[in-house]
Amino acid sequence: MDPFLRKHLSRSVQSHTPYTPGEQPSFGQKVIKLNTNENPYPPSPSVKEKVVEGIQSLNLYPNPQASDLRKSISILNRVSEDQVIVGNGSDDILNLCVRCFGDEHHSIGILDPSYSLYEVLTSIQGANLIRIPFQTEDFKIPFQLIEKSEANLFFITSPHAPSGRGYSLIELTDILNRFQGIMVIDEAYVDFSSQSAVPLLRDFQKLIITRTFSKSYSLAGLRVGYALSSPDIIEILDQAREVYNVDKLAQIGAQAAIEDQAYFIKTRNDIIASRDQLSSITEGWGWRTIPSSTNFIFTQPVDKYGKKGKVVAQNLFDYLERSGILVRYFERSPLTDSYVRISIGKPEEMTMLVKKIKEWRLHEKQK
Amino acid sequence: MDPFLRKHLSRSVQSHTPYTPGEQPSFGQKVIKLNTNENPYPPSPSVKEKVVEGIQSLNLYPNPQASDLRKSISILNRVSEDQVIVGNGSDDILNLCVRCFGDEHHSIGILDPSYSLYEVLTSIQGANLIRIPFQTEDFKIPFQLIEKSEANLFFITSPHAPSGRGYSLIELTDILNRFQGIMVIDEAYVDFSSQSAVPLLRDFQKLIITRTFSKSYSLAGLRVGYALSSPDIIEILDQAREVYNVDKLAQIGAQAAIEDQAYFIKTRNDIIASRDQLSSITEGWGWRTIPSSTNFIFTQPVDKYGKKGKVVAQNLFDYLERSGILVRYFERSPLTDSYVRISIGKPEEMTMLVKKIKEWRLHEKQK
Repeated sequence: MDPFLRKHLSRSVQSHTPYTPGEQPSFGQKVIKLNTNENPYPPSPSVKEKVVEGIQSLNLYPNPQASDLRKSISILNRVSEDQVIVGNGSDDILNLCVRCFGDEHHSIGILDPSYSLYEVLTSIQGANLIRIPFQTEDFKIPFQLIEKSEANLFFITSPHAPSGRGYSLIELTDILNRFQGIMVIDEAYVDFSSQSAVPLLRDFQKLIITRTFSKSYSLAGLRVGYALSSPDIIEILDQAREVYNVDKLAQIGAQAAIEDQAYFIKTRNDIIASRDQLSSITEGWGWRTIPSSTNFIFTQPVDKYGKKGKVVAQNLFDYLERSGILVRYFERSPLTDSYVRISIGKPEEMTMLVKKIKEWRLHEKQK
Repeated sequence: MDPFLRKHLSRSVQSHTPYTPGEQPSFGQKVIKLNTNENPYPPSPSVKEKVVEGIQSLNLYPNPQASDLRKSISILNRVSEDQVIVGNGSDDILNLCVRCFGDEHHSIGILDPSYSLYEVLTSIQGANLIRIPFQTEDFKIPFQLIEKSEANLFFITSPHAPSGRGYSLIELTDILNRFQGIMVIDEAYVDFSSQSAVPLLRDFQKLIITRTFSKSYSLAGLRVGYALSSPDIIEILDQAREVYNVDKLAQIGAQAAIEDQAYFIKTRNDIIASRDQLSSITEGWGWRTIPSSTNFIFTQPVDKYGKKGKVVAQNLFDYLERSGILVRYFERSPLTDSYVRISIGKPEEMTMLVKKIKEWRLHEKQK
């Protein structure tokens, strides 16, 4: 880099590595996209109806407190409105958590592997990172290591990504009792599971639960997420928030989506049914498949010679990509590098996926 | 604050004071809103047309590089696409500037008074703030003080807010030659002026120009802003940006607005005409009114006894508020505390404003 610019850069940015999202194919490119855990169904029809009404008044600033949306969220989760903060995607909220509770004297703790954005946000904040690796291939929470860590704030993804494993309320209560700092439970995928940490808000002031409209509400394109916590923590996050962080159409659209629970339940249940069907198929092939509480499965491919591992997973990933199907492969961790992560699409997309994998199992010349 | 939470707070947030926006009346409250420099006209009809088309695919993530919008912006400003970054409002971009070029060893410089968000962003970053007061009531740039400052990055609002004063290309070139750090020229209001710093991008790698769709493009509700700079600086800002910072409808809507230049020019010219008319009226009353290069005027009220000053300005502000007209009053600086800032509304709103001010001048019992 240019020496003039290097000299002027803030220290944390000098050593920063940005986040790498899953591939977004360019418009018009014909692929089956099962790589970023998007919802295959469009948003509720009432989103369109309400958003259209909002366009005419876009010349005015949005409500800076997102009051109506926060009210709907509070009703949905049976908490009070001062326990809710809304963000420009849950990424915005995760960033606020790091900015409010992380610096060089306040470490941020993460599990490895998990959502890689936590680490990116910590790096740009210049905060110290404490990385705790999972100890077992079933992604059990490493309770003692987290308890002994000196993290000021700790991120737990529940259900976990990229494994898809869910955690019980007993496990979450246990870790909240053991860990002494602020705890973020990132529930991006919780609507596809049967357990949420929301009941624990009553007992733990230090608990922050983050949520997104990107997965179960089919609104990845609209960038809306939120957090639930104690009023004291919400107040702290709120004063660090950009005043107009959520635009008017995003507020309106997310509210419309929440209020159409019939559509939400229908599409969510369809996805869960497809997921369970796909898991049965991969397990039927003898592929180790983590029981999923999310809208994706994490499975360990086995080739026609009975082999599994890094080369085999990479080989399947490449084969599917050449066949126009994008899935996700995480080569960085030994706990993930023999697996592929497959988002749940529409039934016809799942049928095509299974057909292509069957072809791979029979015919593909292995490297 | 709760001692547990205080102990866990990051240092910069412990001492942080949040930004206070202009009042946003609640929905249904009938007021003439001339306090936050919004555009009184709705966005171009083609915004609606295009945004509606985008709703159906909101289940997919937006384009993380906002490629189409960046292309339109680059054509409009005659720069290359790698000289453009798009943000969730220009506030997002200003924040990126502070995060990339400010920390405890890299000071942020601001003029006082100017957009108070610069200071808020600096505080939350924990960077040192260098505050340079304007020396004269005409808001001339204090060239020598900025030159001698040890700021790593300096914010100049051009045209200036809240005064509305414009700066010439000669003045801007002069300050860019003198100041040795990174310089941000915040052109939020530039479309209402006759001079932009864009031609200076050729000569100054260190120049960052920020823009917004909130004012001249009638899209305050949609939160879209951008920066133009050298490719090297854009790359730095870009790696600190949240990957999906601008949602799909915001990208589509802003692009549609840019591409309807006929509508843009018509509404912009109407606002300029109303502004010049209002300035003539206040000057005709003998009120000192800064020649405006923006969509607002900054004027020093004189009461019926010929008095001006803090009490008089506050009195007019209160009178207008009671009459259902919101304007803005900045009591914090001696350079602003005898003035009011009035956003330019529709002609009928300006007529009502003038009528109410005339009433105030004749009848209001002064405190």
